[in-house]
Amino acid sequence: MVKNIYDVIIIGGGPAGLTAAIYTKRSGFKVLLLERLACGGQMNLTSKIENYPGLEEIDGYMLSMKMEDQAKDFGVEIKYENVINVNLKNKVKSIQSEKETYYARSVVISTGANERKLGIENEDNLIGKGLSYCATCDGNFYKGKDVAIVGGGNTAIADLLALKNIANKIYLIYRGDKLKASKIYLDSLKSMQNLTILYNTVINKVNVNQKIESLDLLNTNLNEISNLKIDGLFIAIGRVPNTELFKGQLNLDENNYIIADETTKTNIEGVFAVGDVRRKALRQIVTATSDGANCSKSIEEYLMLN
Amino acid sequence: MVKNIYDVIIIGGGPAGLTAAIYTKRSGFKVLLLERLACGGQMNLTSKIENYPGLEEIDGYMLSMKMEDQAKDFGVEIKYENVINVNLKNKVKSIQSEKETYYARSVVISTGANERKLGIENEDNLIGKGLSYCATCDGNFYKGKDVAIVGGGNTAIADLLALKNIANKIYLIYRGDKLKASKIYLDSLKSMQNLTILYNTVINKVNVNQKIESLDLLNTNLNEISNLKIDGLFIAIGRVPNTELFKGQLNLDENNYIIADETTKTNIEGVFAVGDVRRKALRQIVTATSDGANCSKSIEEYLMLN
Repeated sequence: MVKNIYDVIIIGGGPAGLTAAIYTKRSGFKVLLLERLACGGQMNLTSKIENYPGLEEIDGYMLSMKMEDQAKDFGVEIKYENVINVNLKNKVKSIQSEKETYYARSVVISTGANERKLGIENEDNLIGKGLSYCATCDGNFYKGKDVAIVGGGNTAIADLLALKNIANKIYLIYRGDKLKASKIYLDSLKSMQNLTILYNTVINKVNVNQKIESLDLLNTNLNEISNLKIDGLFIAIGRVPNTELFKGQLNLDENNYIIADETTKTNIEGVFAVGDVRRKALRQIVTATSDGANCSKSIEEYLMLN
Repeated sequence: MVKNIYDVIIIGGGPAGLTAAIYTKRSGFKVLLLERLACGGQMNLTSKIENYPGLEEIDGYMLSMKMEDQAKDFGVEIKYENVINVNLKNKVKSIQSEKETYYARSVVISTGANERKLGIENEDNLIGKGLSYCATCDGNFYKGKDVAIVGGGNTAIADLLALKNIANKIYLIYRGDKLKASKIYLDSLKSMQNLTILYNTVINKVNVNQKIESLDLLNTNLNEISNLKIDGLFIAIGRVPNTELFKGQLNLDENNYIIADETTKTNIEGVFAVGDVRRKALRQIVTATSDGANCSKSIEEYLMLN
C-alpha cells in the first residue's frame, strides 16, 4: 500500500517548475519539487538579466534564489535528488530518484533544455565574456557592436532577426554551403545591409583577452585561415531538451521536445509539461513562469475529476 | 505623406503591453506605447501580490511602476492618450487618439479586461476589505476562512476549484436554480464537503466593519432574508474585455475576447493581441508578460517579411 501520495510532483526547479510549485501550493495541494542540482535551471548560467518585468537588472543566480525562497515560504517541499526513472501511465504515477520512490496523482515536467555546445576550447568559461546562446536574452548588450552567429538553421535565423536592428555588423558563420531556412527568409536576408554570411566556415580558435576579441576562422573549401574581430559570439546550433527519461511514454516532437500546448497538457492525463522542455516558439523566463501558472489551472481541473 | 511611422504601436500599458514594449524595444524597433490613464492595468487595483515569481510580496501599484520605469529606461516612448479609433486593415495601420493620429507597421493590443461588477453599494471601496474578483490571485489570503462566491457559470466554478483546498467553508451564491457548468463538474461538486450552494439567492446588503463581516441574503423564491458570516467575498460573474474599438476588424469570441493563440497573432497580419484581452485559459500577470515576449518574436518575423 502506498502511504504517502502527493497531489503534485514537479521534476525540475527552473522558473517553470518553481512557478508551478508556487501556484499549486497556493491552491492548497500537497506538492513535492525534485531538483537534481540547484534550483534556477538555465537562469543560473546568466550573469545579467534585464528583461524580466519588474526587476530592472538582476543576475540569474539571485533571481533563482528569490523564486526558490518564495516557493519554500509557501511551504513547497523541495528535495535535491536526481530522478532516474518514471512511470506515468497509471493513475498514481511513480517517480524514482536515486534515493527513494515517490508517488503522485499528477506530475509536472520542467526538466528544461540545454544549449547545444559548439565544442570550442574552454567554451563554458567564455560565457559572460562575449559568448552567448540566446540572442533574445543578450542581444541588447551588443548595441552598435560587431557580432558573429554560428549556425545555419532556424535557431540561427531567429538570432539574426533578434540582432538585426541592434548590432553594427553581423557575421553568420556556417559550416555548410546552403542555409537551412525557408526561401522567404533567405530572400529577406539579402536586403540586410549589415549581414555577411561566411559559408563553409568553422571557428578554429577564439582569441580572448578578458573578453572575446576575435575569431580565427577556417574556410574548409579553400583551406584558408582568416581573422575576424568581433565583440560578441552567439552559438545558435539548437538546444537539447532533457526528455530521455520520458521517451516511450510521452509524445515528443522531431527535436525531442514534449508536445503540449498552452494548457501544458501532454498525451498522458495528469502529466503536464512546462518551460523550455515543452514545444514552444520562444524560451524565456516569462514564457516559463506562464507555463507554471497555466499548469496549475489544468491540475485543479484534472484533480477535481480524478 | 506619412512622415513618422512606428515599427510597433502598443495600445494599453498593463503587464502584457509593458513587456511587449520592453521586448520589442530591446530588439531595436521604434516603439510607441499608448496608455489611457496610468500604466499597470488591473495590477493597480491589487493591494498585495504574492505569486509573481521573484518578488516575494509587492503591491500592484509598485510592480506597475517598476515595469513602467524598466520600459522607459530602455527608451520606450510612452504617451498618456486615450485611443478613440483604429484602422488595422492596411499595411500601415493608423491609431487615432484624442490628440493625434499615429501610424505603425505593427500593432499590439493590450487593452485588458475589466471585472464585471456585481452592482452592490460601495463595491469599489470593498476591494482590499474582503472583496475580490480573482480567486487564483487572492484565495490564499483566506486560508482556513469562510468565503462566499457569487456566480453560477464557468468563472464561479473555476473559483470554486481554486478555493476548494484553501478555504474552510465555501458558500456559492447563485441567483438561478441551476448552475451553468457541465454535468461532470456538477457531480464532483456534490462530493465537496465544505461547499454549500445557495440557489435563488442574491446579496441584499454587505455588512462591513473595516472588513467585510457578513452578508444579508435574499432568497428570491421564499422572499426570506438571512445573514451569512463570511471573511471573503469573491465576485465571479465574468469579465468584460476592452474590445469595442476593434469590433468589425478583429475576430472576437462569444465573450468578445480577441481570438489569438500563444503566438498572439490575430486574424489581421501585423496585429497581435496580448494579455487579458486575448482568449486564454488563465489571466494572470505571468501569462500577460509571457504574451508580451511572444508577440515580440512574432513581430520580428512579421516585420522582416513586410
